[in-house]
Amino acid sequence: MLQVNEAQDIINKRISDLCYPASPERLYEPIRYVLRLGGKRIRPVFALLACNLFADDIEPAVEPAIGLEIFHNFTLLHDDIMDKANMRRGHSTVHKKWCDNVAILSGDAMQIDAYRHVSQVSQDKLKAVLNLFSQTALEVCEGQQYDMDFELREKVTLPEYIEMIRLKTAVLLACSLKIGAIIGGADVRDASLLYDFGINLGLSFQLQDDFLDVYGDINKFGKNIGGDIMCNKKTFLLISALNIADTQTKTELEKWMTIVHPNPQEKINAVTNIYNRLNIRRVCQTETDCFYQKALVALRDLNCPDQRKTVLRNYANCLINRES
Amino acid sequence: MLQVNEAQDIINKRISDLCYPASPERLYEPIRYVLRLGGKRIRPVFALLACNLFADDIEPAVEPAIGLEIFHNFTLLHDDIMDKANMRRGHSTVHKKWCDNVAILSGDAMQIDAYRHVSQVSQDKLKAVLNLFSQTALEVCEGQQYDMDFELREKVTLPEYIEMIRLKTAVLLACSLKIGAIIGGADVRDASLLYDFGINLGLSFQLQDDFLDVYGDINKFGKNIGGDIMCNKKTFLLISALNIADTQTKTELEKWMTIVHPNPQEKINAVTNIYNRLNIRRVCQTETDCFYQKALVALRDLNCPDQRKTVLRNYANCLINRES
Repeated sequence: MLQVNEAQDIINKRISDLCYPASPERLYEPIRYVLRLGGKRIRPVFALLACNLFADDIEPAVEPAIGLEIFHNFTLLHDDIMDKANMRRGHSTVHKKWCDNVAILSGDAMQIDAYRHVSQVSQDKLKAVLNLFSQTALEVCEGQQYDMDFELREKVTLPEYIEMIRLKTAVLLACSLKIGAIIGGADVRDASLLYDFGINLGLSFQLQDDFLDVYGDINKFGKNIGGDIMCNKKTFLLISALNIADTQTKTELEKWMTIVHPNPQEKINAVTNIYNRLNIRRVCQTETDCFYQKALVALRDLNCPDQRKTVLRNYANCLINRES
Repeated sequence: MLQVNEAQDIINKRISDLCYPASPERLYEPIRYVLRLGGKRIRPVFALLACNLFADDIEPAVEPAIGLEIFHNFTLLHDDIMDKANMRRGHSTVHKKWCDNVAILSGDAMQIDAYRHVSQVSQDKLKAVLNLFSQTALEVCEGQQYDMDFELREKVTLPEYIEMIRLKTAVLLACSLKIGAIIGGADVRDASLLYDFGINLGLSFQLQDDFLDVYGDINKFGKNIGGDIMCNKKTFLLISALNIADTQTKTELEKWMTIVHPNPQEKINAVTNIYNRLNIRRVCQTETDCFYQKALVALRDLNCPDQRKTVLRNYANCLINRES
């Protein structure tokens, strides 16, 4: 059985072995740069673990797994331009280190490179893998567009928010698992169950992220606590709070959202306080756990020896109980 | 035999029948918008004509041909952001009509959609088509990066310039022809000859474009005459002129390139005058014709009935003798 750290090592080794042309330097150096920044490599690890549920030889899944990681990093690269983000994984973003044009074009090249790697599957599985990958890639774009749209909108409903994070985050996790499963030889039912596992885990994962922004340990969470509160991001917590607050509490919350230059700690404390009074912590944890349980059910229903599922179940548990 | 206007009609009909989701509107409306702007549809027409050299049924080439046109329009969309271009085909560019973020993301979605269409080929040909398409797409990015790099460089040699336009323009024409040929059932040699035909025609085509910027008929050429001269674009004409000019003429030319706010017509007239004295018109026409002849040789050497080649030869001739 392939362990998570072994899968990570395989992926990191293969990524560090990737060879891009020397020239044009401003096209390929940003690609080398972002792939060197690391990360948890969750998507390719999922692909390898999913493949290993059905096949002992995971080598046929490695190239597509690399492609999924390249695609994920491409989305981060372009998202960072759109969000005007300066930092990513403790380093300057590409558009900051170079410029917007370099970031746009090297991102375009990464997307093509992702397709090149994802396409490295046997001929009989290529159509299925490619169709799923293209559909997923488009959905990720849709998710990003909804995310940007929601910033400009006054009201976002919970179902709309869940659909946005399903598209922006969950589908690529699900796609990675399903591609691994297809390559490993899973039948349609099992491949579909793994996809459901990925969707629900992804949703759970993103709600956990919303939660940690407010209730995380500053020493463990990678970002500053309260970042979402400061920029009025319509997270699960804020949308839920606005949904269940009485008129007075709602007015208080909206007042904090409209103050132009609030004292950061004061605003974070005040909004967190409102969340606490509304028991949003509990609401969020319940919803997170609900998706997590759905993920586990999908995993349980998979038609493969239970011991094979343990690695994936433990990894899911470790991701969802993370503090960073 | 499929005629050019029939091929254009098929492509335009299929493009107008493309159906994108209604939502998110800011992701899909820009795609509908750019595909509605039209254009000569040269790449998909080439794909259909190339297929028809070897097969009577061109239907299997239509979806990939549409993919090539979508890819081409994606490159224009992202290039227009990078070049800060306001107009394209007489209409506002996407980043002007919406904003940069919308243009970046809808471009990303178009690239994915291009892959979806290009992938609609029979399983036995999918790998060959996909490998060629991905390699070409990367080369187009390389060409665009070199083009931007050259703007910042003081000196660009003719071989560097030819390589840049090969990547930026010629390879996608060549790829379109070769994909059509592969789908039509051409053997490796014929597919490769059609690729060569496309490369040489593409180079010839681009040099013609450089030529028309200076010597075109303002009433027929789509852009303003002298646009390249005004922005000191390192075209075939300028590079050749700097190469063959004596010291005094070179100094004169460089003087015009460094004046900060020249009178446009004065600068265009002066530089055109220098080109005339150096006989650059002739140099450019000779080089254009040299590539064109190479293209015709590749077409001649194709192993298919000569009457089948006539449509392609006439279309090439019509493209290269265009005045706009």
